[in-house]
Amino acid sequence: MKSDPSISEIAVSRVDGGRFSEDQDDVLAVEEPLEIRVGFGNDGQRSHKAISITMRTPGDDESLAAGFLFTEGIIKSPDQIAGVRHCGRPSPDKGILNTIRVDLAEGVDIDLKRLERHFYTTSSCGVCGKSSIEALETGAARLESEGPLVSAEMVHRLPELGLASQSTFEKTGGLHASVIFDVNGGIEAVAEDVGRHNALDKVIGKKLLAGELPLSNSILLVSGRASFELVQKALMAGIPILAAVGAPSSLAVELAREFELTLIGFVRGGRFNIYCGSERIESDGRSDARN
Amino acid sequence: MKSDPSISEIAVSRVDGGRFSEDQDDVLAVEEPLEIRVGFGNDGQRSHKAISITMRTPGDDESLAAGFLFTEGIIKSPDQIAGVRHCGRPSPDKGILNTIRVDLAEGVDIDLKRLERHFYTTSSCGVCGKSSIEALETGAARLESEGPLVSAEMVHRLPELGLASQSTFEKTGGLHASVIFDVNGGIEAVAEDVGRHNALDKVIGKKLLAGELPLSNSILLVSGRASFELVQKALMAGIPILAAVGAPSSLAVELAREFELTLIGFVRGGRFNIYCGSERIESDGRSDARN
Repeated sequence: MKSDPSISEIAVSRVDGGRFSEDQDDVLAVEEPLEIRVGFGNDGQRSHKAISITMRTPGDDESLAAGFLFTEGIIKSPDQIAGVRHCGRPSPDKGILNTIRVDLAEGVDIDLKRLERHFYTTSSCGVCGKSSIEALETGAARLESEGPLVSAEMVHRLPELGLASQSTFEKTGGLHASVIFDVNGGIEAVAEDVGRHNALDKVIGKKLLAGELPLSNSILLVSGRASFELVQKALMAGIPILAAVGAPSSLAVELAREFELTLIGFVRGGRFNIYCGSERIESDGRSDARN
Repeated sequence: MKSDPSISEIAVSRVDGGRFSEDQDDVLAVEEPLEIRVGFGNDGQRSHKAISITMRTPGDDESLAAGFLFTEGIIKSPDQIAGVRHCGRPSPDKGILNTIRVDLAEGVDIDLKRLERHFYTTSSCGVCGKSSIEALETGAARLESEGPLVSAEMVHRLPELGLASQSTFEKTGGLHASVIFDVNGGIEAVAEDVGRHNALDKVIGKKLLAGELPLSNSILLVSGRASFELVQKALMAGIPILAAVGAPSSLAVELAREFELTLIGFVRGGRFNIYCGSERIESDGRSDARN
């Protein structure tokens, strides 16, 4: 049986009260750097460029790389990708392939300037005098359709439905999960990673490579908190409903409001909060807000 | 009374089972972009450069900027800093100052190449054929001293001692905390942020600006998981013991082992795991491992 690249076994000392137990087996979530490279240009004049190093859990690297390029606005559609494959040599210590290359289709021109979003080097200020969301140049678009109507009962069940499949988390307690559901609670895609943004890029990348974007009729569940970055990525994929087991941030709520995404937080223990877009959630306890 | 810049009030819909309650008061953790700029050069030929945009919770911005420059290896000591101050105009929507400038002392030469650690643009591969830790060029140094000997009983008490002071988390459930303790469990510095790395940069920055680095006799508690990045930052500050309420990653453990840091995880419910460096933890239940 092939071993799971997302977990690593280790001996630890467990301490329970004042009692030490040495050499106890434990399982860790694997964290390794992934260099994402983009290959572009025409035949004969092909070049490639490293655009990001992310700390990720190995597995679904192709989806992660494709999803990252899409949610960062660098590519617009799956047909801009000619292929995605690991390259370079495996790491000498663990034999893991930590470099992946996304080859763009011939003639595709990408905006490398976008990559500098988090790394300005000009002397003009990127943030001063702009609203926070303007300064971040999200590139997200308003949702194309009204989106589905989902029952409160279904929202309550999302963690049980989705996180039951989060196997590595169960073992390590160290991973974030992203799960994409259809409106009936069926799981469409699931991914885990040490980085919450990577887990989301992985599920979006899976759907992108399958030619199934935008996700206009889907629900996204994330296992942790909802940051600005996660809302932005969800919007890029056209997802109308984002539910988080943890808390949202102020800027996550602002961005969700501006782009009319339904943002739900603290989905646990039979409760949740709706921060905006409550018209997509129906309940026996009130009439459909659309009426 | 000045309002707390780290929280934001909002009306939400609370759903409990099938019952909706509209317009309920809720409190969010604030997330806003911070552009960190570095001012350098000599009098008469002064220039400045934006080197990072981080999504942070406002408050302790000076410590965050100084701590970031230090833990990323861009500056080596507090005397390399001539001053830290907000600059530019406040954001038009919220009146928050989202740009901060660290002016370097005259004659200080910084390695701007280091800033490109996560953003290679050369055609040579940064990761291929290297071990993960080599590829990440941590720049961390082995701890200078053996460090303190701490009782298991004290480790058990860290969350109760440290996180009781985490006021915003209590209100929002949305922040990470970093707490620096002395060997007797006294709190030396505490900070909260939506980003775990920012919370750590804030506490390290506070100690840096106070001229109190390295923290050779301190214990660091983080409220969440321990990633590679947190271990790296702790090592840069000379911290010998890092305790996390959550799980460590595989690369966090590798880096801690290589640099002889004591790494503890899952500090909760009267238990914890020691991943490496157990010689710094003593217990009635066993003899001092140093003997």
